[in-house]
Amino acid sequence: MTQWTLDPGRYFDPNPAQREAARSLYADIVSLPIVSPHGHVDPRLLSDPDATFGAPTELLIIPDHYIFRMLYSQGIPLVSLGVPARDGSVIEQDHRAIWQRFAEHFYLFRGTPSGGWLAHALVEVFGIRQKLSGDTAQAIYDELAAKLDAPEYRPRALFERFNIEVLCTTDAATDDLHHHQAIRDSGWGGQVLPTFRPDAVVNLETPGWRDHIARLSEVSGIDVVDYTSFIAALEQRREIFKAMGARATDHAALTAYTAGLSGVEAGAIFARALRGQATAEDAVRFTGHMLIEMARMSIEDGLVMQLHVGSYRNYNPQVFARFGADKGCDIPVTSEFTQNLHPLLAKYGNDARLSLILFTLDESTFSRELAPLAGHYPSLILGPPWWFHDSPNGMARYFDRVMETAGLYNTAGFNDDTRAFPSIPARHDVWRRCACDWVAGLWVRGRIDEEDARAMAYELAYGLAKRAYRLDRA
Amino acid sequence: MTQWTLDPGRYFDPNPAQREAARSLYADIVSLPIVSPHGHVDPRLLSDPDATFGAPTELLIIPDHYIFRMLYSQGIPLVSLGVPARDGSVIEQDHRAIWQRFAEHFYLFRGTPSGGWLAHALVEVFGIRQKLSGDTAQAIYDELAAKLDAPEYRPRALFERFNIEVLCTTDAATDDLHHHQAIRDSGWGGQVLPTFRPDAVVNLETPGWRDHIARLSEVSGIDVVDYTSFIAALEQRREIFKAMGARATDHAALTAYTAGLSGVEAGAIFARALRGQATAEDAVRFTGHMLIEMARMSIEDGLVMQLHVGSYRNYNPQVFARFGADKGCDIPVTSEFTQNLHPLLAKYGNDARLSLILFTLDESTFSRELAPLAGHYPSLILGPPWWFHDSPNGMARYFDRVMETAGLYNTAGFNDDTRAFPSIPARHDVWRRCACDWVAGLWVRGRIDEEDARAMAYELAYGLAKRAYRLDRA
Amino acid sequence: MTQWTLDPGRYFDPNPAQREAARSLYADIVSLPIVSPHGHVDPRLLSDPDATFGAPTELLIIPDHYIFRMLYSQGIPLVSLGVPARDGSVIEQDHRAIWQRFAEHFYLFRGTPSGGWLAHALVEVFGIRQKLSGDTAQAIYDELAAKLDAPEYRPRALFERFNIEVLCTTDAATDDLHHHQAIRDSGWGGQVLPTFRPDAVVNLETPGWRDHIARLSEVSGIDVVDYTSFIAALEQRREIFKAMGARATDHAALTAYTAGLSGVEAGAIFARALRGQATAEDAVRFTGHMLIEMARMSIEDGLVMQLHVGSYRNYNPQVFARFGADKGCDIPVTSEFTQNLHPLLAKYGNDARLSLILFTLDESTFSRELAPLAGHYPSLILGPPWWFHDSPNGMARYFDRVMETAGLYNTAGFNDDTRAFPSIPARHDVWRRCACDWVAGLWVRGRIDEEDARAMAYELAYGLAKRAYRLDRA
Repeated sequence: MTQWTLDPGRYFDPNPAQREAARSLYADIVSLPIVSPHGHVDPRLLSDPDATFGAPTELLIIPDHYIFRMLYSQGIPLVSLGVPARDGSVIEQDHRAIWQRFAEHFYLFRGTPSGGWLAHALVEVFGIRQKLSGDTAQAIYDELAAKLDAPEYRPRALFERFNIEVLCTTDAATDDLHHHQAIRDSGWGGQVLPTFRPDAVVNLETPGWRDHIARLSEVSGIDVVDYTSFIAALEQRREIFKAMGARATDHAALTAYTAGLSGVEAGAIFARALRGQATAEDAVRFTGHMLIEMARMSIEDGLVMQLHVGSYRNYNPQVFARFGADKGCDIPVTSEFTQNLHPLLAKYGNDARLSLILFTLDESTFSRELAPLAGHYPSLILGPPWWFHDSPNGMARYFDRVMETAGLYNTAGFNDDTRAFPSIPARHDVWRRCACDWVAGLWVRGRIDEEDARAMAYELAYGLAKRAYRLDRA
Repeated sequence: MTQWTLDPGRYFDPNPAQREAARSLYADIVSLPIVSPHGHVDPRLLSDPDATFGAPTELLIIPDHYIFRMLYSQGIPLVSLGVPARDGSVIEQDHRAIWQRFAEHFYLFRGTPSGGWLAHALVEVFGIRQKLSGDTAQAIYDELAAKLDAPEYRPRALFERFNIEVLCTTDAATDDLHHHQAIRDSGWGGQVLPTFRPDAVVNLETPGWRDHIARLSEVSGIDVVDYTSFIAALEQRREIFKAMGARATDHAALTAYTAGLSGVEAGAIFARALRGQATAEDAVRFTGHMLIEMARMSIEDGLVMQLHVGSYRNYNPQVFARFGADKGCDIPVTSEFTQNLHPLLAKYGNDARLSLILFTLDESTFSRELAPLAGHYPSLILGPPWWFHDSPNGMARYFDRVMETAGLYNTAGFNDDTRAFPSIPARHDVWRRCACDWVAGLWVRGRIDEEDARAMAYELAYGLAKRAYRLDRA
Repeated sequence: MTQWTLDPGRYFDPNPAQREAARSLYADIVSLPIVSPHGHVDPRLLSDPDATFGAPTELLIIPDHYIFRMLYSQGIPLVSLGVPARDGSVIEQDHRAIWQRFAEHFYLFRGTPSGGWLAHALVEVFGIRQKLSGDTAQAIYDELAAKLDAPEYRPRALFERFNIEVLCTTDAATDDLHHHQAIRDSGWGGQVLPTFRPDAVVNLETPGWRDHIARLSEVSGIDVVDYTSFIAALEQRREIFKAMGARATDHAALTAYTAGLSGVEAGAIFARALRGQATAEDAVRFTGHMLIEMARMSIEDGLVMQLHVGSYRNYNPQVFARFGADKGCDIPVTSEFTQNLHPLLAKYGNDARLSLILFTLDESTFSRELAPLAGHYPSLILGPPWWFHDSPNGMARYFDRVMETAGLYNTAGFNDDTRAFPSIPARHDVWRRCACDWVAGLWVRGRIDEEDARAMAYELAYGLAKRAYRLDRA
C-alpha cells in the first residue's frame, strides 16, 4: 500500500508558470501565524489546560455537521453515527462502529472540501500514513485514539503547534465569558477573544426568547423591562465583551432587511414581545431596526459588525425535532443587499468609524451587489466566501467575481468559521494556497507585477484579516 | 481541401498534465455502453424494424429546434427551413434548398454545442469528410441521403452501433404504450423503456385538458369523474408503465411550487376544472399539490420522480400560433427551490424510498439551493445540466458549483434529453470528455488521487445514471 | 528602478498552446481601427480643434468615478480629490496634492480593470516609464503636464493616433447637437456621431422633468402640451439625430419592465405629469410604455435601440446631495428580462427591422434569460459586459455564459462606454486580448478550427460592432 500523503502542489493550477509563481508566493507566507477572527471553537477547550478532545469520533464526526450531513444524504441514519437525539432515540454507542461506518463511506467526500480538510487533519495533524477506508479504519482509529490521549494533542498544545496568533470565538450576548476569563487568569499565552452575538435576544422568534431576556437582565445587572432598558443592557454587554478583548459583533438574519423604527414603534413591538404577543412581522421589523441600532453602537464603541444573511435555519422539521439545530439542514435562500441595506447605509454608510463585514450564501450577489457596495462605501468590507462556499471552487468564484470591482483592500481576508478545531490549519492552508494561486494567475497574465503579487499574497494570508477586525489596534 | 476531422483531444484542457490525465481517464470509460435514462426519442422509430429517418433535412434540421432557432434569430424564416406551419403558410418543400440555406449559415454555430453535436454526427456517425459550407452542401447532402437509405443507418442499426444499453423515452400518461409493446413483441434485443409524464392531465391549463382527461378515462378504464377517480386512474397508469419497464416519472412546471391541499380542496378544484371553471390560481395550487401527491405515489411504487422547472413555454405568441410548441421559443425564468420545495420535503424528504431528481435552468440555484439540498436529503438527487446548459461550459459550471457541496454521489450522471437520435453519441461523448477533464483537473491539483479519479470517471460515465434511475434493479 | 512596461502577453492564458494561439489571433486584429459605438466622450473635446485636456488630475482623476470611488471606499474624502461639490464645501485646489494622494493609493487598484487601464494610458499613451507610486508621483506629474500641453496630446490628435474609425457619443434628446455640427463644419475627418438618449424626458421622475419638456418644445419647435405632441417632438428629434449621423438610441431604466398603455391612459399620465401630479406608479408605467413606443419608432426610422437596466442611481443620498450624479454610487439590483420584456417582444420581437441591444448588470441573467432570448429573436442582440463587468474576468464570464446559447453572431462586439478619453485604446485592447484568448481556448480544445477562430476574432474586434450598430450602412 502506498503512503497517504498530501500533494505539496495541491490547489495550484497545473500550468507550470502559474504553479511556480503560486509556489513562490506560498513559500513567502506559509509560516505566517494564523489569524482566526471568526469561528465557533468552544472556549472551554482552551480554558482548561487539561481538556482533551475525547474519542476520534467525538472530535471528527459526531459534532461535525459537514461530515454527517453527507452521510445522511446517502441514507445513513444520524443515530447510527452517534449524533445525540433529544427524543430518546437509541443512539449508536460503539465509537469503533461509528468510525467504521464513516470510513466505509469516506469515498462520498471525493472532491469535496470536507474530504480535503479531513485528509489534511489526518495526515498533517495526526500523522496518519494509510488512506482511510473500510479496511484501514480500525488501525487508524487505534492510532488516533492513542494520539488523542497524549499531551501534545491537547487543545492548547495544538493551538500552539498550529501557530495561531489569535482565535476569536462566538459568544451569546448573555454569556458571562467565564471561560474567557479563565483563559486570561490561567496565565497561558494563547490569545482567545470573544465575539458578541446577540441574535437570541434580538430575534423575537428565538425559541425561549423571554428566557434569554431574563438571562440578559441577570448577566447585565440591568432589569430589561422595556426597549430602553434592553438597549442599555446590550450596550453594557458590549462594553464587557470589549473589556474582555472582543473586537467584533456577529449578527445572523434570514435577509439583509433593515429599516429604522421610531422609538415609540420599537418600544411597542418590544412590549408586545415581552407579553408574548409579537407577530412574525414584528420580528422582521425589529430585526431590521436592531441592525441599524447595532451599527450605531459599533460607531460608538468601535466593535466591528459582522452580518451573515441568507440561511433558512432548521429547514428540515423532522431532523430539527429529533436532533436540534446545526445538523446540516440549514439551506440557503435568495438574498438581496442593495435595497435591503439602503436604510442602514443611508444613515451610517459614509461613516468610516463603522466597519461592517458582509457575508452571503447567494453568490449571485457578489458581482451584482456586494462588490459595487464595498467598492464605494468606507464602512463596508466583504467577508470571505462563507460556509458552502469555503472551498477551493468557492474561493475561485469569490476572487473572480469580487476583486475586480471591490478591490482587494475592501475585503476581510479569511475566516475559518469552524467548530472543528483540527480543521483550522487545513482551512487556512486551502485559503492561502487558493489565494496564492489566484494572485499567481494575475501575475502570469501580466495583470500585476511581482511587487504587487507579493504584497497581495501577504494581505490575503495575514494583513487583511488583522486590519478588518482591528486586531492591529491596541 | 483538408479533411474534416474531430480533434481526438477535444474538450480537454490544453495543459499537458491535465490533458494527459483526462485522456487516460477517458480511455477507461469510452467503451462503456450508453445509459440514456431521459430523452425524447419517438419509440415508433424503434418499434418498426424498417423505420427510416427520411431525408437529411428531416433528420437533422426540420425537427431540431436547437438548429432552426439559431437560424431564425438571424432573420431566416422558419417556413424557409421546412418547419411545418398550422396556419396554411407556404412551406419550403425543396429539401436541397433547405439544406443549402442551413449549410450557408453553419458558421452561426461556431463555438456552440449544436455545432459540436452536428460535426460529431456528420463526421463520426455519417463519415462525412468535407467541412459543411455552402460550397460543400450538395455533395454532403448526396452522401447523407445515400447513407440514410442504407440498412446500417436505420434506427435499430444505429441504436446498436451507438452501444446503447438502455434508452428511456418520455410518454404521456394517456399513452397506451403500443409502440413500446411492439418493441417488446418484436423480439429485438434493444432495451427501450417508457417514462410516465402526466403534465397534460395534471396541469389544468393544458389546452384541451378535458380531452386529455377523457383520454385518461379511456386508456385506464377508470371513469375520471372526480379527484378520487383521477388519482386512481393515475395510479393505474403508473402500474401499467411500470409493468412495461418504466423506472421513472417526469414532471415539468414553471416553478417548483409545492403545497398540499386537503382532499376537499383538491376535489373542489378538480370539479371546477371539469366544469371548465378552474382559475389560474387553481391551476397553480393543483400543480403544487399534485407534485406532493406524485412523491407519495413514487414512495409507494418505486418510480423515480423527475422534476424540470423554470421554462416559460411558448413565450413567443406569434411563433406558437403559427408553428406550435417546441419551436425554440421556450425561455427560462428565475427559479427558487428552497422555499418552494419545503412542503414536499417536509412531508417526504427524509424517506429514502423517494428518489426525486431535480433539474434547473437557473444556474444561480446550483450552489445556493440545489447542492445544499442534495447534500442533505436522502431523497434528493441533482440531475445533469439541462437544455441550454447541456454544453461544455454548462457542464464545467455544473461541476464547479454543484459537486463540492452536493457530493458526486448525490448526482444523476448524464441525460441526453434529446429527440435528435444521431446526436445521442455526440452528447454522451461531450459529457464523458468534460467529466473526465473535470476529474483530471481535481487530480492534477492534488485534490484527489488516481484511485478516486478512476472511480469518479466511471460513475460519471455510467454508474450514477444507472443507480439514480434504478436501472440496476430488476 | 526597473522600467514600467506592459506585458506583451497580458490577459492571455499562461498555457503555451493557448497563449500562442491567442497571440496569433491578436496579431491579425491588433491594427484594425477602433469602432466605438457607445460611450460618453464630450463632443466639445472634438469640436474645438484647440481643445486640451487640462491638468493630469483633470484628465485622469477628477472626472473619473471609477477612480475616486475606490479611493473613497478607503476613507479618502472626495473633496480631497478635487471632486467638485455643490454645497460650498472646500475642495482641494492643489492638483499636485491630489495627484500625490492618488499615487500613494495606487496600490488599491491592484488587479482591478481601472488599474490596468490606467497603466495602459500612462505607459502606452503618455510614455511614462516609472511605476506610479508616492515616490514617483511628482516626476510623473511633470511629465504628464508637459505632454498634455503639447499639440500631439490634444483630443483630435489622440483620436487619430488611437485609430478610431467612428466614435458615438451619448446626447440628451433635447441637445441641439451644435458640437456635432461644429465637428462636421470644421472639415476635420474624424467620424463622431450622436446617440439619442431621451431618458430625461421619458422618465417622469427626472428632477426638473418639466424643464426638460420645455427644452424639448424649444429645440424641436413642437409645443409639447400633451402626449400626442410629446410623441411628435420625440419623432422630430430622432429625425434630427439621424440626419446628424446617429445610428442608435439609448435608454436606461431601473428594470426591463414593459407594458403597453392605451392612448387614453398614456395621455392621462402625461397630463398628470405636466401638472406635477404623476405618481411613482405612473412613472413606472409610463417608462414601460415608452420602451415599447421607442421600439415602434426604431422599426420606423431604423435607429438601433439600446436598453441598459439594473442600476439604482444615486444610491448614496449624502454623496448625491453634496456631489451630484455619477459619483461612483450607482449600485446594481436584481434584474429580470423574460417576464418584463414579454409585452415588447410579443409586439415587435419578430420584426427584424428592430435591433434591440440589451445590457445587464445582473450576470445571472446571461445564461438564464438573455442568451436564450438573443438566440431566438431576430430583433435581439446582446451588448457586451457592462460597467462593473467591463473587465477581464467580466468578459470571461460573458463569453462563458452567453456565447454557447446566444451564438457569437447575436452579440454586439465591444462598447468602451467611457467618458475617460485616454482609456479608450486600453479598454478596446483588453477586450481584443480577452476575446482572442477566449477564441484561442475554443481552438486549442478542438471546439473550432483555425478558419473559425480567425473569423471569430475579426468579428469580435470589428465586424460585430459595426453591423450591430448599422455602421456598415450608408
